[in-house]
Amino acid sequence: MSATSPTNRLTFVLVHGAFQTGSVWEHVAAELRRCGHVVHTPTIAGHGPNAAMDLTHDAAVASLVGYLREHNLSDVVLAGHSIAGSYIAKAPEQLPGQIKRLVFQGAFAPADGNALADEFPPEDAAFFDMADPAHGFLLPFEVVRERACNDMDLATAEAVYAGMAPIPVAYFTDKLDLALFYELIGKAEVKTSYINAINDFALPPGEFAAFPRFAQRLGPLCRILQVQGAHYGMVTRPRELAEALIQAGRD
Amino acid sequence: MSATSPTNRLTFVLVHGAFQTGSVWEHVAAELRRCGHVVHTPTIAGHGPNAAMDLTHDAAVASLVGYLREHNLSDVVLAGHSIAGSYIAKAPEQLPGQIKRLVFQGAFAPADGNALADEFPPEDAAFFDMADPAHGFLLPFEVVRERACNDMDLATAEAVYAGMAPIPVAYFTDKLDLALFYELIGKAEVKTSYINAINDFALPPGEFAAFPRFAQRLGPLCRILQVQGAHYGMVTRPRELAEALIQAGRD
Amino acid sequence: MSATSPTNRLTFVLVHGAFQTGSVWEHVAAELRRCGHVVHTPTIAGHGPNAAMDLTHDAAVASLVGYLREHNLSDVVLAGHSIAGSYIAKAPEQLPGQIKRLVFQGAFAPADGNALADEFPPEDAAFFDMADPAHGFLLPFEVVRERACNDMDLATAEAVYAGMAPIPVAYFTDKLDLALFYELIGKAEVKTSYINAINDFALPPGEFAAFPRFAQRLGPLCRILQVQGAHYGMVTRPRELAEALIQAGRD
Repeated sequence: MSATSPTNRLTFVLVHGAFQTGSVWEHVAAELRRCGHVVHTPTIAGHGPNAAMDLTHDAAVASLVGYLREHNLSDVVLAGHSIAGSYIAKAPEQLPGQIKRLVFQGAFAPADGNALADEFPPEDAAFFDMADPAHGFLLPFEVVRERACNDMDLATAEAVYAGMAPIPVAYFTDKLDLALFYELIGKAEVKTSYINAINDFALPPGEFAAFPRFAQRLGPLCRILQVQGAHYGMVTRPRELAEALIQAGRD
Repeated sequence: MSATSPTNRLTFVLVHGAFQTGSVWEHVAAELRRCGHVVHTPTIAGHGPNAAMDLTHDAAVASLVGYLREHNLSDVVLAGHSIAGSYIAKAPEQLPGQIKRLVFQGAFAPADGNALADEFPPEDAAFFDMADPAHGFLLPFEVVRERACNDMDLATAEAVYAGMAPIPVAYFTDKLDLALFYELIGKAEVKTSYINAINDFALPPGEFAAFPRFAQRLGPLCRILQVQGAHYGMVTRPRELAEALIQAGRD
Repeated sequence: MSATSPTNRLTFVLVHGAFQTGSVWEHVAAELRRCGHVVHTPTIAGHGPNAAMDLTHDAAVASLVGYLREHNLSDVVLAGHSIAGSYIAKAPEQLPGQIKRLVFQGAFAPADGNALADEFPPEDAAFFDMADPAHGFLLPFEVVRERACNDMDLATAEAVYAGMAPIPVAYFTDKLDLALFYELIGKAEVKTSYINAINDFALPPGEFAAFPRFAQRLGPLCRILQVQGAHYGMVTRPRELAEALIQAGRD
């Protein structure tokens, strides 16, 4: 990747997925900045060590929207990883005219009225039923290791998991109002891109695979890019993921 | 790619897709010739600036077949890109014994009796209903940019689009008689290959994706190759596409 | 790939697919040994030149299990290619506690009660009906060449085929008792990985494609890895396949 000119400079807001914080983007952000782009990596409420566990999904969205407002950001390439797809989807309606494009990176685009939990395969849904709201929810290590860290050695997978913390159960179980989001998609008033890593099996392949299921929901003009790597490309392939984010986010 | 011996020399006829001309193959043809192969890149009637817009799909096929006859070509690896799949499919029945193999590169293999328009997702079909036969049909820039130029920067996508011109509406709406083509496929009297670029989302992913839908129609002995790149690999990855064409076309 | 420490040393048993013998793994085994791993490449009964053709599928399994017992192997990464998926699936129940993980490499995971033949597309099933039990079964060259050697030049494909020999018809037509295998999968008492090469079209794409159909049967904790190459990666990409086997087999 070569340096970018001022006219090609993009403003990225990169939103981490479940159990993680903005720090997961460290290497991707460094790559993007090296190319001249502006990068923000907020940590969403309810994520991180010692976060409050009594929050609703609305609080996560409010946390993201509040960050964008506070920093007075506009023309934003707003990228969400994994469950952050459900956070970024609510931004355009709350910040009209401020979002250049939404980039779903291995991310959920839940159907209107569904909870995130409803988008998992039925055999996974039991995870959420068993979760204790007081202590939040964190997937078991074996699930994270086998499905999302499939391309990592054990030490790297353990380090990723060591950096994780539970998040509020309601983030997975709250029914989501995405009617306006899909209306904006239908009117082509929100631009979208989808990045799928060909080894991303965080959701098992087949009927409940993330790709192409979620990309198909993002309208006939969704810009789709497949890349090497798995669910945590920001850990294993930061340079290639940065390049894909540029390809996904540029005009 | 290394130089080929006379016995491995292939005769390629590369047929461009909609809105384009034979010039789109410039870099692929140069690669193939450098390896010792013979390459033809005809422009099909109804394509190119100032083409007649009152032509039927038969005229496109006749244009291709006429080119092959005029140049007295035999043992031809006949490759079609995108909608040219519907042109090349008619060649073996009109030139029996002259076609070594058909190569579908991100190409349509319409069902017998369907028009090309019938092979698009229902939400795309409206494009063709709105087209004015007098002025021909050209997809809007946003569709070409987001779905077919997804891996390009804006300047490259604009250059690709600047090289495009409308083609006759009837090319998309004429019902196609492909009964004999599929009969020849069924009897294994026509050899086929399919090249799918993993980032080719000219047709959106899912039920109406080009791949594997069209490859599945080409019989149980279709040789399938997946490559990097998107719909216009001849622009973005000419060397890899040339290599794939050799792999697809050789014995 | 760098050398491995004693604690990371894996014991691989690599099981060839139909018509082949353990020698097909030569280059992959050399790569794995170079990295410090222990590698066994048994030839399964009924395979190889002059093998008995009156064997049942049970004999193939017994041959594999016998090899593991004779060599007193434990903590085994047991990898099966193609139809060997049906052999390795029976190992954990016969050698409880000895198998570290099953790795399906472009391999069949037949449904309980099905024969291997039942897992082929209906149009392929005729192959097995026509087979003569006295002489065993070998797929015709064109099928092997177009579907499984799609990424090879003709000379390499011919060399692969020259190394093939018929195997007992019953290997394909015996109904398989995999109830206990899937019970162990369901209880997460057998660990599994699936390696899919993106150009593996030994089974045609679509409903009867090997991937993701067979991987989906291996439970929600199956570790899936997609790699470059086609059905015979051990011939065309031994180094990358060795690396994938390590990624699939390690803790």
